[in-house]
Amino acid sequence: MDISIIIGFIAAFLTTFSFLPQAIKTISTKNTDGISLSMYILFVMGVSFWILYGIFISDLAILSANIVTLLLSSPILYLKIRSVSKRA
Amino acid sequence: MDISIIIGFIAAFLTTFSFLPQAIKTISTKNTDGISLSMYILFVMGVSFWILYGIFISDLAILSANIVTLLLSSPILYLKIRSVSKRA
Repeated sequence: MDISIIIGFIAAFLTTFSFLPQAIKTISTKNTDGISLSMYILFVMGVSFWILYGIFISDLAILSANIVTLLLSSPILYLKIRSVSKRA
Repeated sequence: MDISIIIGFIAAFLTTFSFLPQAIKTISTKNTDGISLSMYILFVMGVSFWILYGIFISDLAILSANIVTLLLSSPILYLKIRSVSKRA
């Protein structure tokens, strides 16, 4: 297997699953203080575009990695919106 | 221009620059409470692998987007490590 494919797989795995500890921390502590709402709005929009892109070019790796990222980052966005709207 | 290229560009732009508001918020408030240290360790590692991948396959888009993401996410990681080590 070509070394670049292995590097690409490691990169995708790390950036995708890096959101798992953040999702666990946010869901368990409900603490979204230091988290930027605009970051997660932009990020979730961006990941949705990556999913659309994966569909358009029929790339299962891009599609699956970004579906996982969406599943992990959406609860963080939801909890941040909820905490901001509570304070409003 | 093919629609998928436009979608891919928007996706890359959004997920790359989504870290800008988080970097600004963290640098200005120094508040990293709700932020997960392990997320940013994994994420910065992952982005570094994307840069390596971009070099290997000579893809300027992947290389440039991930260099920007690295520049934006590294200060967040640094400030989180600093705040954790202060408390230790």
